[in-house]
Amino acid sequence: MTDFARTRAFFDLPADVIYLDGNSLGPLPKSAVQAVAQTMQKDWGQQLIRAWNSAGWVDKPRQLGDRIARLIGAPAGSVVMGDTLSIKVFQALSAALALRPDRKVILSDNGNFPTDLYMAQGLVGLLGKGLELRIVEPEAVEAAIDEAAAVVMLTEVDYRTGRLHDMAAITEKAHRAGTLTIWDLAHSAGALPVDLAGAKADFAVGCTYKYLNGGPGAPAFIHVSPEHAEHAEPSLAGWFGHEAPFSFETQYRPAPGIERMRVGTPPILGMIALEAALEVWDEVDLADVRRKSIELSQLFIEQVERRCPALALASPRDPARRGSQVSFRFEHGYAAMQALIAHGVIGDFRAPDIMRFGFTPLYLRESDVLEAAHILERIMRERLWDDARYMARSAVT
Amino acid sequence: MTDFARTRAFFDLPADVIYLDGNSLGPLPKSAVQAVAQTMQKDWGQQLIRAWNSAGWVDKPRQLGDRIARLIGAPAGSVVMGDTLSIKVFQALSAALALRPDRKVILSDNGNFPTDLYMAQGLVGLLGKGLELRIVEPEAVEAAIDEAAAVVMLTEVDYRTGRLHDMAAITEKAHRAGTLTIWDLAHSAGALPVDLAGAKADFAVGCTYKYLNGGPGAPAFIHVSPEHAEHAEPSLAGWFGHEAPFSFETQYRPAPGIERMRVGTPPILGMIALEAALEVWDEVDLADVRRKSIELSQLFIEQVERRCPALALASPRDPARRGSQVSFRFEHGYAAMQALIAHGVIGDFRAPDIMRFGFTPLYLRESDVLEAAHILERIMRERLWDDARYMARSAVT
Repeated sequence: MTDFARTRAFFDLPADVIYLDGNSLGPLPKSAVQAVAQTMQKDWGQQLIRAWNSAGWVDKPRQLGDRIARLIGAPAGSVVMGDTLSIKVFQALSAALALRPDRKVILSDNGNFPTDLYMAQGLVGLLGKGLELRIVEPEAVEAAIDEAAAVVMLTEVDYRTGRLHDMAAITEKAHRAGTLTIWDLAHSAGALPVDLAGAKADFAVGCTYKYLNGGPGAPAFIHVSPEHAEHAEPSLAGWFGHEAPFSFETQYRPAPGIERMRVGTPPILGMIALEAALEVWDEVDLADVRRKSIELSQLFIEQVERRCPALALASPRDPARRGSQVSFRFEHGYAAMQALIAHGVIGDFRAPDIMRFGFTPLYLRESDVLEAAHILERIMRERLWDDARYMARSAVT
Repeated sequence: MTDFARTRAFFDLPADVIYLDGNSLGPLPKSAVQAVAQTMQKDWGQQLIRAWNSAGWVDKPRQLGDRIARLIGAPAGSVVMGDTLSIKVFQALSAALALRPDRKVILSDNGNFPTDLYMAQGLVGLLGKGLELRIVEPEAVEAAIDEAAAVVMLTEVDYRTGRLHDMAAITEKAHRAGTLTIWDLAHSAGALPVDLAGAKADFAVGCTYKYLNGGPGAPAFIHVSPEHAEHAEPSLAGWFGHEAPFSFETQYRPAPGIERMRVGTPPILGMIALEAALEVWDEVDLADVRRKSIELSQLFIEQVERRCPALALASPRDPARRGSQVSFRFEHGYAAMQALIAHGVIGDFRAPDIMRFGFTPLYLRESDVLEAAHILERIMRERLWDDARYMARSAVT
């Protein structure tokens, strides 16, 4: 049984804040500051270039990949870290297209995170060849899978509504049509149990700064199923994905397996912060996380619906069809969220009218959820959002 | 006049080491540890998601780009940070090819760093269309430029020999043939004065962990000349390069100018370490750096040639044709370098037989160079390299 008091103590949480935005940027693991400082002072500072070997920097992308593999139901040796989620989407998509050279359609949905769609658009623009990105409604994805589709590329949990795709069913349907699958796990990894191997997913990608708490701009991950790992042709053929990077050959030769999905020199400070963040998962059962996430989410929905009639639930009511977030629609959602933040409850806003709240059992308690609902009630009842201070948009919300 | 005692004090240097490998990984700036710790504790820890605005994270890639622009003779607003050098090569190359759609040749040389060639090979493999990567000898580049060449892609300073290309002459020759240029400044930025605007270079890329001391895997940079910035089509169309990333539109629209070369969520810890490292340049004149680099390099060549007759100079003898490193060939160079490192002088080795030494006036003194030459003499005279301990290869050297 996971001890959530213990996991909460793992994090450095500001005293005056209820944080319902761990689905956007997870909080600071206490041990990460010291881990990064030590890497900088002892390894970079004293070992200098030697630290690539002596501190094991060169192996971090695969080692941390193995730790994440355990959280997403993937075998060891099938996940590697690096770059950003956007880059990993590009790699997975170009590799998938190369495995289905006679097909012209990339199928996705309008609940996918924009950068996934943008990267696909960039790739289509680059390749031409009659390729097409076909974007349908989330509910229409299964029916839209046909033998024209080279690949179906979806984010499992909708970043706006929290709607959860049925990975196993969609992957099975895709495979019956000879279509490959790419699953973006940005809002899944660390949020709920994922079973990539069980679903026979072909590719998966994800970021680590949300439910995995790796820090701002932490390295992303990519999974290639063992079935494809030796056939996936790297489009981003960087030297760290070469079979012998330090032979400095003129000709690229892909490394065996997942290592070929490495590109350039890995960002070590980000890797070390992530490594510290991943330690908490050794004492966590994801089934417990899921159970408590649903409890907290249900409690919040019930409280908000009772206390704030102007807010309309935008997430699926059935917790089995929802990730670890709850969203409400409100016409003045941007200002209301700013007011809420000013009153110590941090969620976030997604255009055009979504107020989004993430539930992260590792550090969020029932009492936090109740207090957040009370404060939100006050914002709404006293119309505290109706204030010029809260209307002005900033770059990132 | 640059005060090199003062710049040396900027760095945390191990007491028992003479570091001649700043061309591979620059040393730790003392202020970087505190800067990163503060970002982690105050911004990430206390501000959480709000730090993207309150700590200015979202603007770091452009702000640091402007600071680097000053060091490479590029106008403000023409450089942006992110990803790795490999990714930036891919972006520059795909944008250049799109600007010359009727041409089929990418021209480069076999002195280019392998990852540049690999990324070009990956792009050629992706695009097909009869594209060809043509690799010639460094000395043959100018003559090989013709109207078949869409782009000439070169690293200004050869990573093995230190041979310096004539950026202005090659760019001029290229432009006469209608060919675009991509300059990799990995061994130039912070090592010698660079004048991208004066040379009318079209694209430039570089890493920041060598002479710019940004730390292991620090973010890379890309420069697009203002002439091309509004026409360069991003192949890696990530959300941070979108005109309105936080509108979460379904369709990609490139941001104005250089911002479109941003891709995913920027790696903030790496950005902050780099920001601390860049502070030293406020008090540095690159002409002074170049003058002292040549003095140190000439002294080392003279000493080594006198003391170590088995070592053959692999770098151009004329300092005007050399970057800020000096290389010697020696059949047992790998073992000799390991022995040298074991005796407190850190250089590095590049296959097949290159012993490489970087000269970095910001923290390297004449006395260091003399001592290094003495120790190298002892390694050679007493054949200390001829020892099984020094023969075994490690992953990174």
